[in-house]
Amino acid sequence: MDKVLRIGIAGLGTVGASVFRLLQTQAATLENRCGKALKITAVSARSKKTDRGIDVSGAKWVDDPVALASDPNVDVVVELIGGAQGPAHDLVVKALEAGKPVVTANKALLARHGLALAKLAEKNGAPLFYEAAVAGGIPIIKGLREGLSGNNISAIFGILNGTCNFILSEMQENGDAFEDVLKRAQELGYAESDPSFDIDGLDAGHKLCILSALAFGHEVHFDEDHIKGIRHITQLDIEYASELGYRIKLLGIARRTDEGIEFSVEPCMVPKAAPIASVSGALNAVYVEGDFVGQALFAGPGAGGGPTASAVVADIVDIARGYNPPVFGIPAAKLQKFRAAPEHSRVGPYYLRLTVLDQPGVMADIAVILRDHKISIESVLQRGHDPLQPVPVILTTHKARESDMLQAVRKIGAIKAIVEEPRLIRMEILK
Amino acid sequence: MDKVLRIGIAGLGTVGASVFRLLQTQAATLENRCGKALKITAVSARSKKTDRGIDVSGAKWVDDPVALASDPNVDVVVELIGGAQGPAHDLVVKALEAGKPVVTANKALLARHGLALAKLAEKNGAPLFYEAAVAGGIPIIKGLREGLSGNNISAIFGILNGTCNFILSEMQENGDAFEDVLKRAQELGYAESDPSFDIDGLDAGHKLCILSALAFGHEVHFDEDHIKGIRHITQLDIEYASELGYRIKLLGIARRTDEGIEFSVEPCMVPKAAPIASVSGALNAVYVEGDFVGQALFAGPGAGGGPTASAVVADIVDIARGYNPPVFGIPAAKLQKFRAAPEHSRVGPYYLRLTVLDQPGVMADIAVILRDHKISIESVLQRGHDPLQPVPVILTTHKARESDMLQAVRKIGAIKAIVEEPRLIRMEILK
Repeated sequence: MDKVLRIGIAGLGTVGASVFRLLQTQAATLENRCGKALKITAVSARSKKTDRGIDVSGAKWVDDPVALASDPNVDVVVELIGGAQGPAHDLVVKALEAGKPVVTANKALLARHGLALAKLAEKNGAPLFYEAAVAGGIPIIKGLREGLSGNNISAIFGILNGTCNFILSEMQENGDAFEDVLKRAQELGYAESDPSFDIDGLDAGHKLCILSALAFGHEVHFDEDHIKGIRHITQLDIEYASELGYRIKLLGIARRTDEGIEFSVEPCMVPKAAPIASVSGALNAVYVEGDFVGQALFAGPGAGGGPTASAVVADIVDIARGYNPPVFGIPAAKLQKFRAAPEHSRVGPYYLRLTVLDQPGVMADIAVILRDHKISIESVLQRGHDPLQPVPVILTTHKARESDMLQAVRKIGAIKAIVEEPRLIRMEILK
Repeated sequence: MDKVLRIGIAGLGTVGASVFRLLQTQAATLENRCGKALKITAVSARSKKTDRGIDVSGAKWVDDPVALASDPNVDVVVELIGGAQGPAHDLVVKALEAGKPVVTANKALLARHGLALAKLAEKNGAPLFYEAAVAGGIPIIKGLREGLSGNNISAIFGILNGTCNFILSEMQENGDAFEDVLKRAQELGYAESDPSFDIDGLDAGHKLCILSALAFGHEVHFDEDHIKGIRHITQLDIEYASELGYRIKLLGIARRTDEGIEFSVEPCMVPKAAPIASVSGALNAVYVEGDFVGQALFAGPGAGGGPTASAVVADIVDIARGYNPPVFGIPAAKLQKFRAAPEHSRVGPYYLRLTVLDQPGVMADIAVILRDHKISIESVLQRGHDPLQPVPVILTTHKARESDMLQAVRKIGAIKAIVEEPRLIRMEILK
């Protein structure tokens, strides 16, 4: 084997510059770890003039990132441009076609073209690594593909978006409203000026569909239908959750059932005593449930230049050591079709917040509707009785099927004395 | 490459039987994941007659486990016998000498002979994997060796012994005394009839010295001097810790400083709000602190047949996929000598519980001693003033050097009005 691995980096934003810095500062250690030197021989970015705090003069500057794929001085292509289409996609395709190993942090690319890219990679014998695409510095891709490869995985769930977790944590800690915390998050750079991709759950959805493919051995399938964000979470829900012994977290959940994969991103209540409840701020956390391991938890910084660079370089080290596992854990040709579980088939407990005019018989009406849908009440919380003002009534249920729950909630919402839209939040039982 | 990987298992206790079961039940999936079938061709255990709930008739029975090393029908040796000497050691040595990949769950073997075995493995080009030796099903070895390989690691710390964590969690939750919980743990099978190896911290010490070698690139060095267990932890300390916002956990800590490696296993106070505080029962958890990743956390079941088998099989899958990284992350020949930090050089906050006869001037005496050792008090907690009965006084300090702290405590303990030995517990600041 050659004693130098020549790296071409496309994209020198926060992550690209951090990868550059990491490879330089850790050069000696990495050479020991890899058995060869990791050398950046070429870089490509939009403008050569931007001050990135790094000295790129030792590497060849390439205007067209796609040219890295055919550059004879590049052994490994690192794609940090982003976006499911355009140069990022073209570069990865061309590099794999040329049999060159690729490392990417591009979750949108994987979520949209994961299957085709995996097939291309395996056809050409070129590894395609993407640790940085999910949960930043947390080695969860490796954890699933290798660390837990002895298991039949039954579920993965976790906090996959740092922006949402930051917002929910701040709402929890300071009692602020969603809009105020969002504004602060934008000022601090934790949220984009257009925050919808994060706070409406799409970013978490991209990551979850990659994890799901890897965990369950199916083709990557991005399912937008079951993705909800955190816009509707109010301080009231956070407070009641706390009173009941829970925290509200935006969880991506993929669970294998006999009927197919349950796939969802939505705010959930998790018990305060579970470690995931303490994963606060911009951190991410992923639980993996396997038949032999039980539950394993991976947590850490889910974004940012340093953590993401850590993941990118881990992939480069794997390549340097000659590792080339199947892209999604099993050969792409053997990945099964994604089979979704029937709509709303999830079974579990729920939290229901109602805003009720305190009239005689209302509670009976509610109880009858729930009973008729085979939903049994676990607890009721009612604070204050004001005949003139609507009061919140909080119900928690025992395990119920989501479809039953939704029907019941629709009927309850139609009761005249229910003056606001009922608020339903899934509760997750965790150790 | 061959389409079958032939496995020889030595040792069919709880773990061995679980590995056997895992390889059988997951055979089809594993073949997909590995690109070849994993077949158990030979087994060895003390008695052929024991009912293990598995049917070993398809594999050759070998009376002498060491014979697996030279068995032409065995490609990979799985050593689950245990013990730093004897057949476990001989088998691993002979297998590596024969160039056969080895998977072991044997922490004592690694802690005692890690360097020699790594050299032998690398000389013969045979991988030596040991995921199951540390923290059961948690893929922390892989996490350090590969997942975080881009980092300069500054510290690793965690809950490395499930027995101790179970006992401390039960003391916390039920208010029971150490001895009572230990007895219960023994009845439940969480603690051995001679529990000292676990509760005195030696088991955690073995694991920590392996993690330290891997994280910092030094020769494995088992340092018995800085290992303390949990026998002296009282309900009183657990209650005061809780009042101060902390939990008591037995932590293994290895930290790199300019002066060398700080290595210790001892009960520590961790903030309740940190995820590690919620890691309860027999679970394990390991934090890794790196310059690029920040803090990453791995948690899960630290022992038991299923989780340990999960780790063993993950190693077999790596071997089947042709992966062969350096045993301790860098070539054994490049591992540095272990250099210990100077005695008691740790700097951090402390908790100090004193049992004091409430006489005039005692607090002044204590305060003067602390001041003279450059230790500044962060908080004082004194409950009740009884001129006839000794009362507990709880002090927490700002950051102080351990050597100063120990000297001060010795002097404080010599004050006449201090009627019990002062109780000092390290506090760890965690996010």
